[in-house]
Amino acid sequence: MKKTKSLKVVFLGGVGEIGKNMTAFEYGDDIIIVDAGLAFPTADMPGVDLVIPDVTYLRQNKDKIKGLILTHGHEDHIGAVPYILSEFKIPVYGTRLTLGMAEHKLLERKIDGAELVAISNKSVVKLGKFVCEFVHVSHSVAGSVAVSITTPIGVVFVTGDFKVDFTPLGGEIMDLNRIAEIGKKGVLLLLSESTNVEREGYTMSESVVAASLDRIFMEAKDKRIILATFASNVDRLQQIIDIAMRYKRKVAISGRSMLNNIEIAKKVGVINYNEKIMVDIDNINGIPDKNLLILSTGTQGEPMSALTRMSTGGFNKVKIGKNDTIIISGSPIPGNEKDVYSVINNLYRLGATVIYDKIAAIHVSGHACREELKLIHTLLKPRFFIPVHGEYRHLKQHADLAHTLGMHYDSIVIPDIGDVVAITGKKILKAGSVKSGGVLVDGLGVGDVGNVVLKDRIELAEEGILLIVIGLDRSDGTISHEPEIISRGFIYTGDKTSSELMAELRSVVHGAIKNVDFKNYSLNQIKVSIVKAVRGYLGHKIKRRPMVLPIIYED
Amino acid sequence: MKKTKSLKVVFLGGVGEIGKNMTAFEYGDDIIIVDAGLAFPTADMPGVDLVIPDVTYLRQNKDKIKGLILTHGHEDHIGAVPYILSEFKIPVYGTRLTLGMAEHKLLERKIDGAELVAISNKSVVKLGKFVCEFVHVSHSVAGSVAVSITTPIGVVFVTGDFKVDFTPLGGEIMDLNRIAEIGKKGVLLLLSESTNVEREGYTMSESVVAASLDRIFMEAKDKRIILATFASNVDRLQQIIDIAMRYKRKVAISGRSMLNNIEIAKKVGVINYNEKIMVDIDNINGIPDKNLLILSTGTQGEPMSALTRMSTGGFNKVKIGKNDTIIISGSPIPGNEKDVYSVINNLYRLGATVIYDKIAAIHVSGHACREELKLIHTLLKPRFFIPVHGEYRHLKQHADLAHTLGMHYDSIVIPDIGDVVAITGKKILKAGSVKSGGVLVDGLGVGDVGNVVLKDRIELAEEGILLIVIGLDRSDGTISHEPEIISRGFIYTGDKTSSELMAELRSVVHGAIKNVDFKNYSLNQIKVSIVKAVRGYLGHKIKRRPMVLPIIYED
Repeated sequence: MKKTKSLKVVFLGGVGEIGKNMTAFEYGDDIIIVDAGLAFPTADMPGVDLVIPDVTYLRQNKDKIKGLILTHGHEDHIGAVPYILSEFKIPVYGTRLTLGMAEHKLLERKIDGAELVAISNKSVVKLGKFVCEFVHVSHSVAGSVAVSITTPIGVVFVTGDFKVDFTPLGGEIMDLNRIAEIGKKGVLLLLSESTNVEREGYTMSESVVAASLDRIFMEAKDKRIILATFASNVDRLQQIIDIAMRYKRKVAISGRSMLNNIEIAKKVGVINYNEKIMVDIDNINGIPDKNLLILSTGTQGEPMSALTRMSTGGFNKVKIGKNDTIIISGSPIPGNEKDVYSVINNLYRLGATVIYDKIAAIHVSGHACREELKLIHTLLKPRFFIPVHGEYRHLKQHADLAHTLGMHYDSIVIPDIGDVVAITGKKILKAGSVKSGGVLVDGLGVGDVGNVVLKDRIELAEEGILLIVIGLDRSDGTISHEPEIISRGFIYTGDKTSSELMAELRSVVHGAIKNVDFKNYSLNQIKVSIVKAVRGYLGHKIKRRPMVLPIIYED
Repeated sequence: MKKTKSLKVVFLGGVGEIGKNMTAFEYGDDIIIVDAGLAFPTADMPGVDLVIPDVTYLRQNKDKIKGLILTHGHEDHIGAVPYILSEFKIPVYGTRLTLGMAEHKLLERKIDGAELVAISNKSVVKLGKFVCEFVHVSHSVAGSVAVSITTPIGVVFVTGDFKVDFTPLGGEIMDLNRIAEIGKKGVLLLLSESTNVEREGYTMSESVVAASLDRIFMEAKDKRIILATFASNVDRLQQIIDIAMRYKRKVAISGRSMLNNIEIAKKVGVINYNEKIMVDIDNINGIPDKNLLILSTGTQGEPMSALTRMSTGGFNKVKIGKNDTIIISGSPIPGNEKDVYSVINNLYRLGATVIYDKIAAIHVSGHACREELKLIHTLLKPRFFIPVHGEYRHLKQHADLAHTLGMHYDSIVIPDIGDVVAITGKKILKAGSVKSGGVLVDGLGVGDVGNVVLKDRIELAEEGILLIVIGLDRSDGTISHEPEIISRGFIYTGDKTSSELMAELRSVVHGAIKNVDFKNYSLNQIKVSIVKAVRGYLGHKIKRRPMVLPIIYED
């Protein structure tokens, strides 16, 4: 075992996207964890609320863990903090805003006693053999950092989520000078995010959004403005509040997460405004349309969000009409498109003017495009590279991008979820994998919804269920209680066609029972023959295969 | 009733998108139908295969219907033809390719005796009081037409799906001259598609695709090429076959719909090639990689398509490896993104080079962008306008576009599904609505999956089902058979936690029964009290609400 000579990088958590929610760095007896985020369930996980990283590997190496570093305050990087801290008593490092957001989550789940250590740009923290320096980066949430980790075999640079914004309103510019210095001293390994690697050029600056919003406020001067944006983008919220002030509008906030984040950001000094501009959403009635801005959540068409409820007329505090201009300053996260556009369609139906990212520059990405990625590679000139934070295709293209900058493919490893990558001073290679991926959370249940349950749910959703309740005297196969057929999600049982079908099904069940050898068959075998007959019949008759569940009681 | 003086336009069919699948034009005793397409089920319709237009209105006016016009051969315009013709014996008009595609559907469903009438550019057909002239347009399927309908009160121009392509490979240019002539004579009403109204400028020409593909073939000269594209885009298929011939590659076709469409297109003369270039997909083994092109379906990540199966190693005829270049010449239809990217990720994992629309110009839209829409409005100068073929937001923006060109909002009606729009020589207005929208098709069942069934399916998918089987002596409430609890999709019943939960649930059921007044309660009331107790308990204990179904048998 050359355990003490190689650095191991372990990719934990994730659904589809790799190296995003949680990454562990291990050298000898020390482990540090970067981020503890959650993933959102995909369409093949019906009913699942969220997905947290599977930390079996950390559990097995519990004593080695020296700390958890949070790069920024987005859900996919901090959402699993309460779950992690309830199991591992480790210190947590992050900027004040990031920690404020994480702390709020801990309070919600009543976890106390957490050791939260605030860091800022250029802070240095020693965790076992790892010396971590934090470097400010631009992103769609304030207080984002990259981490430069000095290990016994060299420097590992983890970008976290970032973009290069030369005019980032309400924040400092990414510390490119420090990154250049680190690069000059020599970097062993780079882990860089890959979200926008498919996009040429540069990501637009946040200042573009400010300019667009200002113009829209000017044009909509006699109208009520309702603006939805991401609750975590506090820099943008600051801009919006400033614009509202300029146009003499009061600001009413709708949405719990928006209220919470503004409060946290205000507490840590990232956001500043005069309290007088704020008005409670319950007290907006007397305010003229032209003097009001309603700031809301709901950019993703979430069913329970204020904006979605406004769009269907179901939000009593705000009724949408012709004198409303609604700005959706965000773009749909992949998978949410249908929900978002449904909200937009309905707002239009109510007569409102709707402005969204496809028709105006009111949102910019928080992630680096190709030229920005090239800048970071060029400044850091790493010996080895692991593309992270993206689907496999993004990682592959980021590897190709690094290759075009002169890196050999031998120096690059594209990881997958659960992979362990080992690095020595001379080599990088995959060194097996560990149990990882996602643990499904449904309600208060963590991990009790597994593949069998999901398979059942999908089958139930596709075809419904048919219960066949029957009383049987097994000594001779006499039917003591005629088969009763109950459908849920299969067919509506109330009309003539379905009554006929049910009658036919009853005779199919009769037939199946008639063929059973009662002396030698178990109850289970009888059930199997009923299922087979019913499914066979339905498959042939109407080309459907509902879940069939026979319930036999014996007299 | 001024029935004979106004023209009625009735928007039938559709899920989310309006004026796309089927539109009826009515004047006095005559009705003509334009298109008979199907819609694809959305996420809130689990298990549904497809959605056909609700034709209640046509059924009520059966005797008036003079014919069905098909603008082009896409599923959302011809997919419901078999369902319509099985009920209405009416002649069908379309270009030879469109009819070939429709005929294939009729054969599949064993519907014969259909009267199919081939038309081409400038053909004129009289249907009752309507005189229909067909005008060739460019689109992503050959044989697409617009329809100019001369009615007793003026000319109605229906664009169908179109783009203005000045260099459409393998087809004529859209007949802009004829459109200009029609415009000069005067147009009462324009119905124009709105799909790309959110996009500035012009749609790229199909010839861009040809150039890109040629370059990719050149660069991948030693590799096997697998190319997936839309089976209906026969002009593009022609190009691809031509390029393959130029690079001395044999062509193997995988996918039934691709084989069918090529055969139909060849029969009607839209596609031409030397049979020698073709090789059966079962006989590709001896052919060197550099001399083979596999043409496949599967641009949408459909689970059963050849490309999806190749990506997971489940397609025996083609095993993907490092020497494969895979070109996906198509873009994901909204809602299919996750599936498509999952296929791309997996193809990359197998070591292949993957080229798709985000990283190369290998697909262009078949729909007009804003400048093209302006061109049509300007050439036709209609008195009235109804934007169609899009979600409500597209239609609204298309109305705004027409307004910027000088049209009054009074002259524009934005329809919704089921709306009836009435037009006189002087006015356009909404005139009520009819029962419409979609009829769900699941397997062979048409219309037997309704809201109750869908609601059940979604509930089952989200939370699963819990069956509580119990034997009861109702005279005194004695339990003759202890409650047996069966879970499907709720929780995995096999581990300790769930065993404990099940035990607790049994005592909850006992408690619920104990509180029942057996003398005065019906069986249904007993069931309700069990459901209430169990759901209350689970909601509190683990914050979940499965469907609970008590099954009580009495001794």
